[in-house]
Amino acid sequence: MIQMEYLIRNLCTTRTSQEQYQTYTFESLPLQRGGQLAPVTIAYETWGTLNAQGDNAILITHALTGNSHAHDPQQPADPKAAWWNLLIGPGRVFDTSRYFVICSNIVGGCYGSTGPSSLEPRTGRPYGMRFPVITISDMVEAQYTLLRHLGVRHLEMVAGGSIGGQQALEWAVSHPEMVHKVAVIAATAALTAQAIAFSEIGRQAIMADPDWQCGDYSTQRQPDTGLAIARMLAMVTYQSEESMEMRFGRRPAQRDNISSPTHFPDLGGRFDVEGYLYYQGNTLVRRFDANSYLYISRAMDLYDVSEGYPSIEAALQRIRSKMLFVGIRSDFLFPAAHVRWLADKVRALGGNSSYVELDSPYGHDAFLKEWDQMAAALSLL
Amino acid sequence: MIQMEYLIRNLCTTRTSQEQYQTYTFESLPLQRGGQLAPVTIAYETWGTLNAQGDNAILITHALTGNSHAHDPQQPADPKAAWWNLLIGPGRVFDTSRYFVICSNIVGGCYGSTGPSSLEPRTGRPYGMRFPVITISDMVEAQYTLLRHLGVRHLEMVAGGSIGGQQALEWAVSHPEMVHKVAVIAATAALTAQAIAFSEIGRQAIMADPDWQCGDYSTQRQPDTGLAIARMLAMVTYQSEESMEMRFGRRPAQRDNISSPTHFPDLGGRFDVEGYLYYQGNTLVRRFDANSYLYISRAMDLYDVSEGYPSIEAALQRIRSKMLFVGIRSDFLFPAAHVRWLADKVRALGGNSSYVELDSPYGHDAFLKEWDQMAAALSLL
Repeated sequence: MIQMEYLIRNLCTTRTSQEQYQTYTFESLPLQRGGQLAPVTIAYETWGTLNAQGDNAILITHALTGNSHAHDPQQPADPKAAWWNLLIGPGRVFDTSRYFVICSNIVGGCYGSTGPSSLEPRTGRPYGMRFPVITISDMVEAQYTLLRHLGVRHLEMVAGGSIGGQQALEWAVSHPEMVHKVAVIAATAALTAQAIAFSEIGRQAIMADPDWQCGDYSTQRQPDTGLAIARMLAMVTYQSEESMEMRFGRRPAQRDNISSPTHFPDLGGRFDVEGYLYYQGNTLVRRFDANSYLYISRAMDLYDVSEGYPSIEAALQRIRSKMLFVGIRSDFLFPAAHVRWLADKVRALGGNSSYVELDSPYGHDAFLKEWDQMAAALSLL
Repeated sequence: MIQMEYLIRNLCTTRTSQEQYQTYTFESLPLQRGGQLAPVTIAYETWGTLNAQGDNAILITHALTGNSHAHDPQQPADPKAAWWNLLIGPGRVFDTSRYFVICSNIVGGCYGSTGPSSLEPRTGRPYGMRFPVITISDMVEAQYTLLRHLGVRHLEMVAGGSIGGQQALEWAVSHPEMVHKVAVIAATAALTAQAIAFSEIGRQAIMADPDWQCGDYSTQRQPDTGLAIARMLAMVTYQSEESMEMRFGRRPAQRDNISSPTHFPDLGGRFDVEGYLYYQGNTLVRRFDANSYLYISRAMDLYDVSEGYPSIEAALQRIRSKMLFVGIRSDFLFPAAHVRWLADKVRALGGNSSYVELDSPYGHDAFLKEWDQMAAALSLL
């Protein structure tokens, strides 16, 4: 009964989504920072067919506010129908005619997997901030359990960008024998101080919203203003000075029918970039849970590939997979130089590692936009 | 009586300051975007002596949260005693044995000049958001009126960084015959879309604070949380990825005795960079007015040197001063390339213009830190 409530709540309250995902619930997940999560539900989608040996699977890992809907076979040509839609399908980089492609919503998320908006068994109410601190390693271990359940014995590839790239790297380090190839895209061994700073400012904006209610907000009244401000900031860090200048410059707003998060009148006009950010903030609050945002963004900050090992070298020496690291020229959240450094480090330690840089002005977001360059890079693996 | 209240309120509510400034009140200031401000009080400090011809004056223009206290003759060796302390004094770049150096608090500020926290004559209550939109040009015109009152007929130099640099540039364009030399430091012809975005996110954080009360907050209860979050974000934009990595990296917090703006417990520990930002947020709210922050940051966004002229060329061709533009290698708020572009543009239009780049990792803030490089650059003028 509780499990049914889990599913219903997750399906109803995540404010989306027509997406058709399946779920798998297991008993418990021991957590890297202590304690456990029990039970755990993981939402996932698959495309293609697992072979009898269970060794033709590809795991796709999503970004912060993403979900399991990486591909939409009904609208395979529409880049907006699913987040990596154009890379997945028969004959594409993630070839569903040959591979069994899986994407699951991460632990802590709000798209069907157990997260802060799930009901806590002990109380029958949403976890809120009683949800435990989760890490990239916890996300990977939940994926591991799901894959075992699905009959996957060996992964042909793990690929993901941003926090998805952190997960891909963690897969290579924590399950070296299970993964043949790993694509770490727009992700590094650990976030910079600047990226942590941006992340924390967004969280403070959420927690400053009186509707946040220390995390115990109702489904009727959520910290929309705070979450919208956090999203506005994040959107700036996902782009670049160059791309924002090209797209908006100092042009006045094209649309002023969207209110700012605080609804106060514009002070001396509205720039186009402001209207765009209001729109982005507004859009996220209709589809994402504020507490999930806090926990998942924190997991990004906390990630350090060396955690649990004597040194970063000790961690990276565990890698047995063929590694592809993809940096983005204009990314200032995960600077290309840091991605390259990591690729070089793995190679220096004897690993099979290559580095490709996307020549894109779009900043961090390029891995969700530059389809041709992405396909070309991934085909090198 | 109203004027006395002005002074008292400004002195009492700006939450600082031992600084000894003088004030000058004049009848009215016509505003660039329409309407007028009346009356207007400008707080200022001076060092050195004006000569009989009234032509040995140097005007120093301050940054967003700055004030008139650019120099402290009592503690001339302490860089923290005043914001450009080490550059001003006998024998220094701004040589008070030769020049009459003036620094005034900008219109819209909260350090003695008329701003949103001043009493509106019509109502006898603080302006709040009924304060008119002000621009860089308005700040310059108020300075012009003050200088005339002080007997200054000609300026040897105007120098400032950031919004102070915008004012310096505006001086060169709007009063070309009055200024001999102008130093525009870490400022450009207009803000980038990215910089406007950061600016607006900070303002939204302030206005989202329930204690903001649509700008009509009491002196007892101010939007400290929102202002602290805005300051945290601004502090990131004043630094650089490089300098934050050097200073903080991923080190755990050295001090956890400062609460975050929202006072919620840390999620999985606290990074040093977070403790630092909490401290900076906390410090600003004790010394700055939230509505002043809104108006002044907006003036920065709105500034475009070409406003009121047919083209940027038409604006820059008015310049008669010897111009020095100073960019900072690691500045991402006012990118060095944009500062250099402006210097080149003025020169291409026939102006006397040179460009110097500070080789500093400290980002935008370098003009408040790199004393040797700043002195060397300014001595070129």
